[in-house]
Amino acid sequence: MSEFITDAWYAAADCTSLAPGPLHCTLLGQPLVLWRAESGQVSALLDRCPHRHAPLSQGRVCGETLACVYHGLRFDSTGRCVQAPGQPRVPTAAAVRQFPVIERYGLVFVWMGEPALADPAELVEIPAYGQPDWGFTRGQTLFQARWTLIADNLIDPAHTSFVHQRTIGDGSAAEVPVHATELPDGTVCCERWIEAAPPVPIMRRFGGLQGLVDRWQRYHYRAPATSWVDFGALPAGSPRTPEAIAAAPYRSMSYAFLSPRDATSTHYFSLQLRHFAPDDASVGAELAAQYALTFEEDRVLLEAIERERQREPQAVETLMASDAGVVRLRRQLSQWRSRRAQQPPP
Amino acid sequence: MSEFITDAWYAAADCTSLAPGPLHCTLLGQPLVLWRAESGQVSALLDRCPHRHAPLSQGRVCGETLACVYHGLRFDSTGRCVQAPGQPRVPTAAAVRQFPVIERYGLVFVWMGEPALADPAELVEIPAYGQPDWGFTRGQTLFQARWTLIADNLIDPAHTSFVHQRTIGDGSAAEVPVHATELPDGTVCCERWIEAAPPVPIMRRFGGLQGLVDRWQRYHYRAPATSWVDFGALPAGSPRTPEAIAAAPYRSMSYAFLSPRDATSTHYFSLQLRHFAPDDASVGAELAAQYALTFEEDRVLLEAIERERQREPQAVETLMASDAGVVRLRRQLSQWRSRRAQQPPP
Amino acid sequence: MSEFITDAWYAAADCTSLAPGPLHCTLLGQPLVLWRAESGQVSALLDRCPHRHAPLSQGRVCGETLACVYHGLRFDSTGRCVQAPGQPRVPTAAAVRQFPVIERYGLVFVWMGEPALADPAELVEIPAYGQPDWGFTRGQTLFQARWTLIADNLIDPAHTSFVHQRTIGDGSAAEVPVHATELPDGTVCCERWIEAAPPVPIMRRFGGLQGLVDRWQRYHYRAPATSWVDFGALPAGSPRTPEAIAAAPYRSMSYAFLSPRDATSTHYFSLQLRHFAPDDASVGAELAAQYALTFEEDRVLLEAIERERQREPQAVETLMASDAGVVRLRRQLSQWRSRRAQQPPP
Repeated sequence: MSEFITDAWYAAADCTSLAPGPLHCTLLGQPLVLWRAESGQVSALLDRCPHRHAPLSQGRVCGETLACVYHGLRFDSTGRCVQAPGQPRVPTAAAVRQFPVIERYGLVFVWMGEPALADPAELVEIPAYGQPDWGFTRGQTLFQARWTLIADNLIDPAHTSFVHQRTIGDGSAAEVPVHATELPDGTVCCERWIEAAPPVPIMRRFGGLQGLVDRWQRYHYRAPATSWVDFGALPAGSPRTPEAIAAAPYRSMSYAFLSPRDATSTHYFSLQLRHFAPDDASVGAELAAQYALTFEEDRVLLEAIERERQREPQAVETLMASDAGVVRLRRQLSQWRSRRAQQPPP
Repeated sequence: MSEFITDAWYAAADCTSLAPGPLHCTLLGQPLVLWRAESGQVSALLDRCPHRHAPLSQGRVCGETLACVYHGLRFDSTGRCVQAPGQPRVPTAAAVRQFPVIERYGLVFVWMGEPALADPAELVEIPAYGQPDWGFTRGQTLFQARWTLIADNLIDPAHTSFVHQRTIGDGSAAEVPVHATELPDGTVCCERWIEAAPPVPIMRRFGGLQGLVDRWQRYHYRAPATSWVDFGALPAGSPRTPEAIAAAPYRSMSYAFLSPRDATSTHYFSLQLRHFAPDDASVGAELAAQYALTFEEDRVLLEAIERERQREPQAVETLMASDAGVVRLRRQLSQWRSRRAQQPPP
Repeated sequence: MSEFITDAWYAAADCTSLAPGPLHCTLLGQPLVLWRAESGQVSALLDRCPHRHAPLSQGRVCGETLACVYHGLRFDSTGRCVQAPGQPRVPTAAAVRQFPVIERYGLVFVWMGEPALADPAELVEIPAYGQPDWGFTRGQTLFQARWTLIADNLIDPAHTSFVHQRTIGDGSAAEVPVHATELPDGTVCCERWIEAAPPVPIMRRFGGLQGLVDRWQRYHYRAPATSWVDFGALPAGSPRTPEAIAAAPYRSMSYAFLSPRDATSTHYFSLQLRHFAPDDASVGAELAAQYALTFEEDRVLLEAIERERQREPQAVETLMASDAGVVRLRRQLSQWRSRRAQQPPP
């Protein structure tokens, strides 16, 4: 059983999926209803009418309220009951639990823990988002695997040389070791430069790279559930100044938001920023398909590991040199769980 | 976990589904085989050959016996073994449990409890059934929901204003309160008149009603598992004499028989009588489709409630004014369980 | 819960399914990877990389090693790690459990217990396999039933009169008793001659038999998991000399290898030898389809028994005269379990 960290922002939905009606989403084993009032405000409530436990996500938005499909009770964005058809008295005790919400980067993020601790500043900053020289694509997948298996994968550049040879990796990087560090804000970073190597498939296709390149992989993971990968290439032997990297013929920043659905499945929301062809929709569509293929390669593998984990939960892992980032991240997650457990709510 | 009431008649199958061979049906977690002997007699036995536990429903009817598919053992309608191929001695100890059966209203009803208590008089009377001025249609659905959630729904006219706006309800009745009573025989009845309102979709389509109407909903539930709804309309302001109601342009009596399949799923057998176009097959077909749509609206809702019930069995409901019938019915079912538990078998 | 016998050879795969890549197979609840090295050697390892528990069956064969899909660790046929990309030191502690393997009869057999006890001589001899006057076909099915239910079925000629009337049985044999014996090597044998009876469908189709025949069924089961059926017919009244049987117009030897997948499902590998039309591919294809139909008739029945066994594990069987072979076999399996349990590994 995976252990959840509740005091965190979790991506719950693409903003565009909130219309025309309310949307169900399960996070950390809790059923949620996400809805946008006529005024535009987005709310997240427990997806259960307190009356007879109908899912509020089967109801409909009426102005600033959400009406239950079963008997028409209406709730405001705080979860308070404001109307009860067929009776004069409104059962004000019948409140639904509300969860803090932020809309950002085209996603709805929900805070699943103590509401008083919900701090929007804990959400990751994405400087390139919305910049005219960066294009972006999105993805969303459900993994039938516990979120920590996906976290392992997202701080692990080494696996790309084997799992993703059709897209973002190739065998030439197999022997290049990975360096793991922690940034000042705690973000774990695993990086390597693969030098004088052929460009990987996705770079050949979109970066116009033909000859040998020096390419970098910088995998970041900020606990508990956000990752981003800085990935790109320069012609082999180029200087690696910030200016050169900023002008690299291929560079992408891929963000992933992991949202545990329950103990053994995870929503994976991704946002891929590219520093080339920012306005070319056909490049975007083709890239999105390539990323979907990459995630699919991970999904098939991680779901098999999940099944084995369930079959034999006590089996012990043997760690390798390339697991330095994984080890750091697991230690952080363990601290994260105990730190939040000790902290009294304000 | 839903608690079963065993001493009761439960609809198990449409009579027409008993030919050409035996039929499997699970009721209250027990596998049953229903079969019709050549003489026409219908029997219900535990669907398990005492020899090697093959399902008798995979066998075939041979005269007045049911032959097992695996080794040909034959059983009579009482479950006694009367023939054992390949050996002279019939293993008479090898009896199969028999369940009392009644065929009525085109359905097979099975008594799941103590056989000595099986009283055909406990089956509901349906006066209109077979009358030349009443037509009828049938339906059968499996709900992945415990039977008590469906019972709640069947004593609850108020939900039609929200769940069934495409068929038997509309918003105009939302604020009309419901009156709950108990009839002398214990049947719970919840009723209301919705006055000077537009006819609901099903009435416009089949009753030829155009102007405002006074329409009634009389929901009956006789514990443990039978319900019927008297539903109709008169032109607004009409006198409400028995004669006027008998001549109403739209009137239906819809019976539902709930048969728990197991703790979390339920067979729903329905019989819809209509006091109009009794012999018009096309009206029947169209009505059956409308009823199927209505049940589907309930099914989607109730199955979601079932899933939530399983996720969090201890969650408490907040009752409303319109739950008076539900409260009475739940009290009756609770008494029914303890009364039968205390009664010694004769 | 079915009890496994670990010290035995179990069929795991058709040899042809080992190319081009490694193959997953679950036996006795253990995930296995079967793979053929470039040199041709077949190995069976636990299907779990000791590093991060990826299934090795998602990897690929590299020369004499199997490479993990996740990080490229390579293992030899004994399960020893021989290469670890990105680091100079090979983690030799990272060994994968190896299982003894035999390739025979076009199948891969795996020994699931104590390796020191793995004796190829325990595999059944099939004298007719590879003889020019015998043709053969193969089959493979997954039964959602515990292996012991299939074992019961395979030592039981009587059931063919009822379950398989479309293929290998008919009603004329229903009353013919079965004789059970144990051969000197412990093999249980159940046999009967059905005399002066019409040929069964499969004999009419392939043996050109028209008039009445004397036909035999000799069902063998060698514990724990191998069965073979000697099945044929002579014109009614023929002498039953070995020469006559060897020249019978219809004779088949059908071998079955049961491989428990887990407690409630079983792989069924079959090899059907026929002493007619040995080189006629169209006869082979048609026969394979007939056998597949026969197994399907068993599968539907045995899976239903399995479900009932799970529903009510304590239900008691009533045995019949024709169960003499089943009783002997069950006694043997019980001894087999305790004998092996007491035997200390060498």
